[in-house]
Amino acid sequence: MSKKISIIGLGLIGGSMALDLKKSGFASHVIGVDKLEKHQKQALNLSIVDEILPLHEAVQKSDIVIVAVPVNAISKLLSEILDILPENAVVTDVGSTKSSLIEAVKNHPKRRQYVPAHPMSGTENSGPAAALHGLFRNKTAIICNAADASKEALETVKTMYENLESKLVFMDASSHDEHVGYVSHLSHAISYALAVAVLEKEKNDAAIFNLASGGFSSTVRLAKSSVDMWLPIFEQNKAFILPIIDIYLDKLKEFKTYLEHDDTEKLAEFIKEANRIRGKLEH
Amino acid sequence: MSKKISIIGLGLIGGSMALDLKKSGFASHVIGVDKLEKHQKQALNLSIVDEILPLHEAVQKSDIVIVAVPVNAISKLLSEILDILPENAVVTDVGSTKSSLIEAVKNHPKRRQYVPAHPMSGTENSGPAAALHGLFRNKTAIICNAADASKEALETVKTMYENLESKLVFMDASSHDEHVGYVSHLSHAISYALAVAVLEKEKNDAAIFNLASGGFSSTVRLAKSSVDMWLPIFEQNKAFILPIIDIYLDKLKEFKTYLEHDDTEKLAEFIKEANRIRGKLEH
Repeated sequence: MSKKISIIGLGLIGGSMALDLKKSGFASHVIGVDKLEKHQKQALNLSIVDEILPLHEAVQKSDIVIVAVPVNAISKLLSEILDILPENAVVTDVGSTKSSLIEAVKNHPKRRQYVPAHPMSGTENSGPAAALHGLFRNKTAIICNAADASKEALETVKTMYENLESKLVFMDASSHDEHVGYVSHLSHAISYALAVAVLEKEKNDAAIFNLASGGFSSTVRLAKSSVDMWLPIFEQNKAFILPIIDIYLDKLKEFKTYLEHDDTEKLAEFIKEANRIRGKLEH
Repeated sequence: MSKKISIIGLGLIGGSMALDLKKSGFASHVIGVDKLEKHQKQALNLSIVDEILPLHEAVQKSDIVIVAVPVNAISKLLSEILDILPENAVVTDVGSTKSSLIEAVKNHPKRRQYVPAHPMSGTENSGPAAALHGLFRNKTAIICNAADASKEALETVKTMYENLESKLVFMDASSHDEHVGYVSHLSHAISYALAVAVLEKEKNDAAIFNLASGGFSSTVRLAKSSVDMWLPIFEQNKAFILPIIDIYLDKLKEFKTYLEHDDTEKLAEFIKEANRIRGKLEH
């Protein structure tokens, strides 16, 4: 049965979801909500949404509300959306943190109509013009604390991700936040610091980027990611990210110590251990 | 005028050069030298080289000798190759460090027949099967200490890179080593440490890589790079790499401190500063 869907936040993720949920037939009608007039116009022009409405009106007309704004905004909006959400409708979010968001509505009388989710996809770009078909295909989507949602709400969100051809994984919010701390948030922190270090060098050495090759571009790619999206992720997941950054700093210092002491054997072991990543990512 | 070329080391770089120098007509005949029988066979089967010869025989038949082995092996081979290099022939290398290699032959009577170079291209893969057409097209190739080579040798190597459609940059070896320390070697160190940190986490948490998305894959890509190639690079460029790693560690610690102290303003500034990298890499 086709659904009326509202997308709150017409960025890369919200826009890409809209495109494929419409294409797959899962959505009969897509309502867009965005505070930026520029995004509203782009989303209409690119046929990402069928209409633009204010938040309250959109939510009240929807079977599913997908909240795809930065995580600080999600945590403020969730309660407001649940307050006015029609009976039998579902709200889900796409935030890269889960514990804080769940905490924000844990005592809400309609909590069971909320399914916290996190599709593990994206690019370093943002806004409706960055939306892509197939962004979630064969990518993992995580649903957290599934037992706290109603069976019907859970079923709806599962079916939605099946229509996006995502692979579903179920886990508790705390494990989610730690895992993505390692495999997503840490990578962003590392990349931001690399960009800042090399940009500082550039101040006295304008030619430095002439030599930047594919290796540098790859490692620094995530440093292009928007501050609006990433600052609140770091802040909400601080409890996991801080110790993970410490672990990482220790590893890099270990590498440095081996190099400093000409410990070729240990340095070789370190690099060979790192090389094992090849087998891990090819599945 | 077409040249007879020897490629010492039939890996990704040597193999890719052979392919395009033959295709462009710059090379009339390509001789391969590799200590691994497997690489010799692959290079012949893939038509990367016309014949395989032992080092001495190959050098003595060549107009140009391209040394494309790990930098520790380059530094051992250069002198031996210069000893037997025909008059008017040229030897060049593709190593990612330059000062140590130049130092190794600085008093050689045929020093002016050596043109130290560094094509800034590559992938995380290695061996002849990883060779690619067009690997050097529109990429920077650096020639170091050009004044120490003969005009004829320099002209030959310049023409060779023009045939590979590379953009040539000239700089002194020390600047080269510092620059690539920042935009290449540091990225590799960062990426190796990320791989080691997450692989260690995996020991108690087998599911961690299920959540790895494109962001992680991008940042950790260089950690697949081979120990044979990279260990000697770090060792030879240690004098530049160690202080650069310290600068990087300071930046990441700065990021961590802002997060720890809930200094939203400073954290936002840090990320916005990092975002400036977007404009720098799009040229």
